[in-house]
Amino acid sequence: MPRLTADNLQARRRTIIDGARRSFARDGYEGATVRRLEAEIGLSRGAIFHHFRDKDSLFFAVAEDDAAEMAAVVAEHGLVQLMRDLRYRDAGWLGVQLELSRRLRTDADFRERWAARSETISRAARERLQRGVDRGTLRTDVPVGTLAAFLELVLDGLVLHRAMGVPDDDLDAVLDLVEGAVRR
Amino acid sequence: MPRLTADNLQARRRTIIDGARRSFARDGYEGATVRRLEAEIGLSRGAIFHHFRDKDSLFFAVAEDDAAEMAAVVAEHGLVQLMRDLRYRDAGWLGVQLELSRRLRTDADFRERWAARSETISRAARERLQRGVDRGTLRTDVPVGTLAAFLELVLDGLVLHRAMGVPDDDLDAVLDLVEGAVRR
Repeated sequence: MPRLTADNLQARRRTIIDGARRSFARDGYEGATVRRLEAEIGLSRGAIFHHFRDKDSLFFAVAEDDAAEMAAVVAEHGLVQLMRDLRYRDAGWLGVQLELSRRLRTDADFRERWAARSETISRAARERLQRGVDRGTLRTDVPVGTLAAFLELVLDGLVLHRAMGVPDDDLDAVLDLVEGAVRR
Repeated sequence: MPRLTADNLQARRRTIIDGARRSFARDGYEGATVRRLEAEIGLSRGAIFHHFRDKDSLFFAVAEDDAAEMAAVVAEHGLVQLMRDLRYRDAGWLGVQLELSRRLRTDADFRERWAARSETISRAARERLQRGVDRGTLRTDVPVGTLAAFLELVLDGLVLHRAMGVPDDDLDAVLDLVEGAVRR
């Protein structure tokens, strides 16, 4: 295998993660066979598993990548904005979220390894809410942790609704209400 | 098969639905084979499918039974109380809810047939909220339909959280916040 520079290595990891996301979303975790992963990523199994130990590590990396991206949106624009933009996310993202919740439900080992990662979004949410409290825009009669838990509950409801194809005509008004509930 | 009186018929349907619920919850829809259904219900396949056309109709009846029971709680005590009591519901109920959301996600035909039934809970929620508005306890600056959509979103987030085993130490405080968000 030719040596890759650091930049190329980064690009290669990105290619693998993005292709794997498409395959996990379409085929599910079990259905994403090594053959399908190869076809979707456009690399041989040797090249793929040079970067990721096994399929499980690869799924973990995809979920981690999504969590990091979501945490960045939360830090910059807040959880409510993340929810408002959910409708523009593609089926790949939704598929990974659903697969993630299935794994968390059925796989205690995975759940334990994921615990630290799932903190990424919660922490970003709490930090941003604390800044809102400090600026005087958010309510102070409820602890920031409770505000964050509330918003994360609504976020997960929204993920489930999107997954089930529940119509969201009224979504903007509902999210205005959600936003109002955490404001001063 | 001996003839059953109307009461016995009711009791027989109840036995079948409750046993089927346990099997669907433990084995999933696919895993609930006719043999397992027979063992859990304690009746022969002949007796079971005398009352329900096939496994699909049986699952539909179980989900319908849960929806009717939930709608009754909502009509009497409201959606927030339904959420507060969620933690006392058993794994059987949760299993059926998860299987239901999976079917709604993956089976367009089922989704269409379910649409009318899913209205049961929404309607009970809207009617109760309207009574709160009329009594002057709920806010009037947001349409009742939006309040109901908000509460149903939180309910589904809670179902997903329970399914994933997300800790709910802060749940009472979060639901106080939710309740406050719809009050005047």
